[in-house]
Amino acid sequence: MEQWLKEDERLDYLLAEELRIIQSPSVFSFSLDAVLLAKFVNVPYQRGKLVDLCAGNGAIPLFLSARTKGHITGVELQNRLVDMAQRSVHYNKLEQQIEIMQGDVKTIASVLGAEKYDVVTCNPPYFPAHEASDKNLKEHVAIARHEIHLTLDQMIFSASKLLKQGGKAAFVHRPSRLLDIITAMRANRLEPKRIRFVYPKAGKEANTLLIEGIKDGKPDLKILPPLYVYGEDGEYTDEVREMLYGKEQ
Amino acid sequence: MEQWLKEDERLDYLLAEELRIIQSPSVFSFSLDAVLLAKFVNVPYQRGKLVDLCAGNGAIPLFLSARTKGHITGVELQNRLVDMAQRSVHYNKLEQQIEIMQGDVKTIASVLGAEKYDVVTCNPPYFPAHEASDKNLKEHVAIARHEIHLTLDQMIFSASKLLKQGGKAAFVHRPSRLLDIITAMRANRLEPKRIRFVYPKAGKEANTLLIEGIKDGKPDLKILPPLYVYGEDGEYTDEVREMLYGKEQ
Repeated sequence: MEQWLKEDERLDYLLAEELRIIQSPSVFSFSLDAVLLAKFVNVPYQRGKLVDLCAGNGAIPLFLSARTKGHITGVELQNRLVDMAQRSVHYNKLEQQIEIMQGDVKTIASVLGAEKYDVVTCNPPYFPAHEASDKNLKEHVAIARHEIHLTLDQMIFSASKLLKQGGKAAFVHRPSRLLDIITAMRANRLEPKRIRFVYPKAGKEANTLLIEGIKDGKPDLKILPPLYVYGEDGEYTDEVREMLYGKEQ
Repeated sequence: MEQWLKEDERLDYLLAEELRIIQSPSVFSFSLDAVLLAKFVNVPYQRGKLVDLCAGNGAIPLFLSARTKGHITGVELQNRLVDMAQRSVHYNKLEQQIEIMQGDVKTIASVLGAEKYDVVTCNPPYFPAHEASDKNLKEHVAIARHEIHLTLDQMIFSASKLLKQGGKAAFVHRPSRLLDIITAMRANRLEPKRIRFVYPKAGKEANTLLIEGIKDGKPDLKILPPLYVYGEDGEYTDEVREMLYGKEQ
């Protein structure tokens, strides 16, 4: 096992998919939001070209590989995370299906080509850049969480550019940014079609937003049933447990 | 009782408020949406000036009178409904608190005055005008339900015009119009602050949207817990039953 891992990295299970993923508490670990997005997005099963922007350590590409036979490209700015993600892909023997590349989302369409993709996903940095400065964050974490190198508008611009007409873009973000996301999507020809709000538990405000749009789609927005993460007992709800650990046999 | 009622009108109970309201199955009856909006909106208790646009038979002004000591103006285009609403106000002896007036929402700010109100509510026509033509709707119902005399944009423009800085506007509509509502609100200085989606029951898509904005407010949107109308047993949920019939003693 050791030849796969560096420093304080661990080889964790993506239990639901019978895959494993390299993580590091000090550099990057994927969040529940990545899992939620990978399960939320509509993907073609038999074929298609998919891109995951801000791929981090590759959690979304790995999760998506269980839902499609299409080819998945993961784009990540930070070399340290690209390296982790690539080793996870190799460990799972998914090199034929998943390519992880270092790249800047702002200019990625000029590298990958415009209007060529069927699906784009992104779990972007959530927080404004200025909030990063006064926090003592490690650089890898700061870049992944804060809009230091990529704003929401820049991300959505690139996502739309990559997509074919009729292609789907799906994002996860904070509900407080709903208006900004919708405005940016419509400004970039991505018509919002499905929104699902995620609530930590019943009776609380939503803390996560899942949204999918179609490039040049017709207006017809649906608000899906709410998703609760924890039940009254403080344990994961059945729906979330199944996403994380798979259906019980 | 007869002296209060015309034709096929009935005197129904607003049970939760110990009020009564004149309705007519052929002309107009208030919907659950009016109740939801009247309970959703934040109102000052001790004082303030409130306006309800598209007041119909006055359900929202009547409900609001139980939540505030402020003065409530109901604006309704159709004389037949103005007459019903006025008789309900008299029946409940609320002439001091509620005034129902005939008026066109499009130009109402020039009658009532701009920037004078603390709260504006509206349960507007939901459906595009063109859908009304091919339906054999009675005229009163067609005008109340379809954007024949008032579009969403016109309504939101007038609502904002009536409001003071810091005043609150609250609307009920269909979730499919979320993007249009948000766009129109922001274009008219109404910053969306609270959204609550209403689901017919668990596992279904939302079919109603409650939204409140503040004139010139700072961006800070909250998605409130979902509201379910019916439980698994097909009966109203406790929350909706309490809105309709009041707390059990």
